[in-house]
Amino acid sequence: MTKTNPGNFFEDFFLGQEIVHATPRTVTEGDVSLYTALYGFRHMPHSAEPYAMGLGFEAMPLDDMLAFHMVFGKTVPDVSLNAVANLGYAVGRFGAPVYAGDTLRTTSTVIGLKENSNGKTGVVYVNSIGINQKDEVVLDYVRWVMVKKKDLNAPTPDTIIPDLPKAVDVDDLVIAEGLDFSSYDVELAGSPHLWEDYQIGEKIDHIDGMTIEEAEHQMATRLYQNTAKVHFDQFAAKDNRFGKRLIYGGHIISLARALSFNGLGNAFKVAAINAGAHANPTFAGNTIFAWSEVLDKQEIKGRSDMGALRLRLVATKDHPADDFPYKDDEGKYHPDVVLDLDYWVLMPRRG
Amino acid sequence: MTKTNPGNFFEDFFLGQEIVHATPRTVTEGDVSLYTALYGFRHMPHSAEPYAMGLGFEAMPLDDMLAFHMVFGKTVPDVSLNAVANLGYAVGRFGAPVYAGDTLRTTSTVIGLKENSNGKTGVVYVNSIGINQKDEVVLDYVRWVMVKKKDLNAPTPDTIIPDLPKAVDVDDLVIAEGLDFSSYDVELAGSPHLWEDYQIGEKIDHIDGMTIEEAEHQMATRLYQNTAKVHFDQFAAKDNRFGKRLIYGGHIISLARALSFNGLGNAFKVAAINAGAHANPTFAGNTIFAWSEVLDKQEIKGRSDMGALRLRLVATKDHPADDFPYKDDEGKYHPDVVLDLDYWVLMPRRG
Amino acid sequence: MTKTNPGNFFEDFFLGQEIVHATPRTVTEGDVSLYTALYGFRHMPHSAEPYAMGLGFEAMPLDDMLAFHMVFGKTVPDVSLNAVANLGYAVGRFGAPVYAGDTLRTTSTVIGLKENSNGKTGVVYVNSIGINQKDEVVLDYVRWVMVKKKDLNAPTPDTIIPDLPKAVDVDDLVIAEGLDFSSYDVELAGSPHLWEDYQIGEKIDHIDGMTIEEAEHQMATRLYQNTAKVHFDQFAAKDNRFGKRLIYGGHIISLARALSFNGLGNAFKVAAINAGAHANPTFAGNTIFAWSEVLDKQEIKGRSDMGALRLRLVATKDHPADDFPYKDDEGKYHPDVVLDLDYWVLMPRRG
Repeated sequence: MTKTNPGNFFEDFFLGQEIVHATPRTVTEGDVSLYTALYGFRHMPHSAEPYAMGLGFEAMPLDDMLAFHMVFGKTVPDVSLNAVANLGYAVGRFGAPVYAGDTLRTTSTVIGLKENSNGKTGVVYVNSIGINQKDEVVLDYVRWVMVKKKDLNAPTPDTIIPDLPKAVDVDDLVIAEGLDFSSYDVELAGSPHLWEDYQIGEKIDHIDGMTIEEAEHQMATRLYQNTAKVHFDQFAAKDNRFGKRLIYGGHIISLARALSFNGLGNAFKVAAINAGAHANPTFAGNTIFAWSEVLDKQEIKGRSDMGALRLRLVATKDHPADDFPYKDDEGKYHPDVVLDLDYWVLMPRRG
Repeated sequence: MTKTNPGNFFEDFFLGQEIVHATPRTVTEGDVSLYTALYGFRHMPHSAEPYAMGLGFEAMPLDDMLAFHMVFGKTVPDVSLNAVANLGYAVGRFGAPVYAGDTLRTTSTVIGLKENSNGKTGVVYVNSIGINQKDEVVLDYVRWVMVKKKDLNAPTPDTIIPDLPKAVDVDDLVIAEGLDFSSYDVELAGSPHLWEDYQIGEKIDHIDGMTIEEAEHQMATRLYQNTAKVHFDQFAAKDNRFGKRLIYGGHIISLARALSFNGLGNAFKVAAINAGAHANPTFAGNTIFAWSEVLDKQEIKGRSDMGALRLRLVATKDHPADDFPYKDDEGKYHPDVVLDLDYWVLMPRRG
Repeated sequence: MTKTNPGNFFEDFFLGQEIVHATPRTVTEGDVSLYTALYGFRHMPHSAEPYAMGLGFEAMPLDDMLAFHMVFGKTVPDVSLNAVANLGYAVGRFGAPVYAGDTLRTTSTVIGLKENSNGKTGVVYVNSIGINQKDEVVLDYVRWVMVKKKDLNAPTPDTIIPDLPKAVDVDDLVIAEGLDFSSYDVELAGSPHLWEDYQIGEKIDHIDGMTIEEAEHQMATRLYQNTAKVHFDQFAAKDNRFGKRLIYGGHIISLARALSFNGLGNAFKVAAINAGAHANPTFAGNTIFAWSEVLDKQEIKGRSDMGALRLRLVATKDHPADDFPYKDDEGKYHPDVVLDLDYWVLMPRRG
């Protein structure tokens, strides 16, 4: 028997299956520095400890998407090593803030299965939970991936498609105990625009572009201990249909989030991921641009220091976002669109 | 109104204007590791904590130029987002040592203005001050940049050009309390040459060359939260006159400083920046070489453990420095010269 | 006299010579993050502090090969700046675990000399010892390099070739006090295969490939403060016989070790390096693959929580390792083989 990890194939998954993923990860200030170097994040509470603590954080919290990548990376060897496509995300809720020194681990439960009519692949739905060393949930989300069958004669499981809401309800957003954004310093944060200033339907072109290098996305993806082969092996990639290494979709999420600082400088706290799609592949050499749309705007019950904004974040490649490229009349993504992310942020408000 | 940062144009600046720059930054050991990885610094007091503490530092101090980049980066969104050229630096004095865990912020005051005769641009002089969480000054310097006018009909301000000394006086160099270099270990530092061994007029070819990759300068520049677009966006750069991304001038300063270890291995403490010019642009693929000249040599009043050396550090691209390329008879820089930095270091002496 | 480091030439070495290498290095969490980002290491005890402490480590130890690079890097300016080739390693024993915050320094003793018959070069054998701030030995190893003579008329020294064992005896492996692997968690570690499961003669293809970028190996090599010029200077390299920068051999060791996780996921503790050869040069753009062979398997006296495995780790370039490429009938390495490393690991056992 081989000692290398073959990964799971579609027929290896069953409903209710619980997977304890390997390699718990102690996150450190070193990870934060690399994250800054890879994307250029500038949200004050993730950059300056005293100001973060002034908002009620215990220390300088990691950017939520960095926590996402760490939690997500652990699922790859078990869930998506034989994946054909990463199809979507839903009901992702961030919980306890993650601080340097925390140790994260991830477990997943299979909550849905659907074999494709070709009999060669199937869709697996997993609910993954990231937990810290105090057993607090830091992230709870669903993703579904299309996975190959190995044994084409393996029996077809009953089709179970979980009923997933289009968005997390604003009342279900987790606000860590002790947080109070009322002393938020707009000047030091670098943007005067608070929750009150954003309107539903408003679109923002984030203007700036960033070109991705092979070394950058490889270093990022390895930092997250994401082992998907397509990101690292040019010898194999030269024979794929692109002839190139594919970039981890999460790298684009973080890049687009960093670009969105320019226009959403106070949207530092991601509270939930409602939905996400990697609309088209990206490669080294692509320049990423981004635009956002305000999809919803909600008060948080009993609080005047912060409000919730539901945002669509769209990233493009080699296509400045001033024309807000998205989908055509038939609902098909513009070929230059590479990311469509629907998420909630908590933003300081004037009160 | 756009929510993205348009930056300031020449007509937005006025004499005496005070700017509180955004994004205070807690610097960490992670930043130090990246700095080592990006440049290869080997000065002992920035590499080995016990030996740094033996010299009277509270902990292992950051390389002064890393502190410079952190302080400088914050000024970009307000001062130089619409800059045509970064014209010069003067009277930069380093103050309190910067340690991992410190939180730095920057404020600037406009101290000079001069509209150019073309009416399309003007020169802005700012005095920027970097401060730590104890309100100690870590760096105080002047730079001037040429900035575009947006409204060509905006009134021309009175011309005020600040009177800037050619160099910081040696008596004005800041020596942090408690520092005592008398136990400096030459063997562990890797260079036997101390203050006494350098002579005014002496030139040193630092021999080694380092080739710059796109991923490296992009990661460095983002680490410093420097947002100047020209460093990151190849999609836009393909249409500029070089067809390439420009490298942040500060990246060259650090690279040349790291190269200068070979010949100036004990010049670990930068005390002041007297003047600096980015003589020509650099691009990924360029190999950087460096040479130094001793411009001045001064005792420090009342001290036998250290002396001051005023150095000229010249960096070149794709041109080994053994012929000490600099300026032609008309004072024009050799086209391969990319940096001309005039600075003071404190160096251990035999006593 | 030049102030730059000319390095030592063959005639500068003498038997019994002791060299105190420069630049002690405080290793940090930042170094660990970069190491993860550069190679993708996933061994649990180097990734998750609580689990490492559960095995008896004082904190999360650095990967042994990261410690090796830090210790090795210091020897370059004195030992191998004028090296023609890095010929081999022997009797490398790892001692005290290295933790973030430790300060490492290195000393070497010349233990062998042999001038080559051409009179232009000679082989220098050095025993290098890495020591932490508590004066504990963290690594003790021998390497030999071929070094140029500068003065071809310098006298030929007596030939002394040290008697080096082919492998470290299992009884001489250092097991740090307090270590107890009996609570090792296979599930969280990501591999079910323990010491009992490996058989002498067993070969494992580690399957995955990783393509190296210039920025990656340059950053790694600078992180280790390894100053060998051939890794950094493309301006000079364009005229060498490859036309390219050569990659530090240690970069390949770490890359191959990281790849070997897939099949040897519990081989986290390197106890000794028996022998090593950099069989062929590697360059940016090469994709590295790896395979291992179990050379020996030994119990550790008095312990049921761990056993020793002696492994051969072979790395290849642009050549998947499923055919286990190695040497031809005449003992010559396959041209695609770039590393041949013989080493001992301590692996948890079932008891």
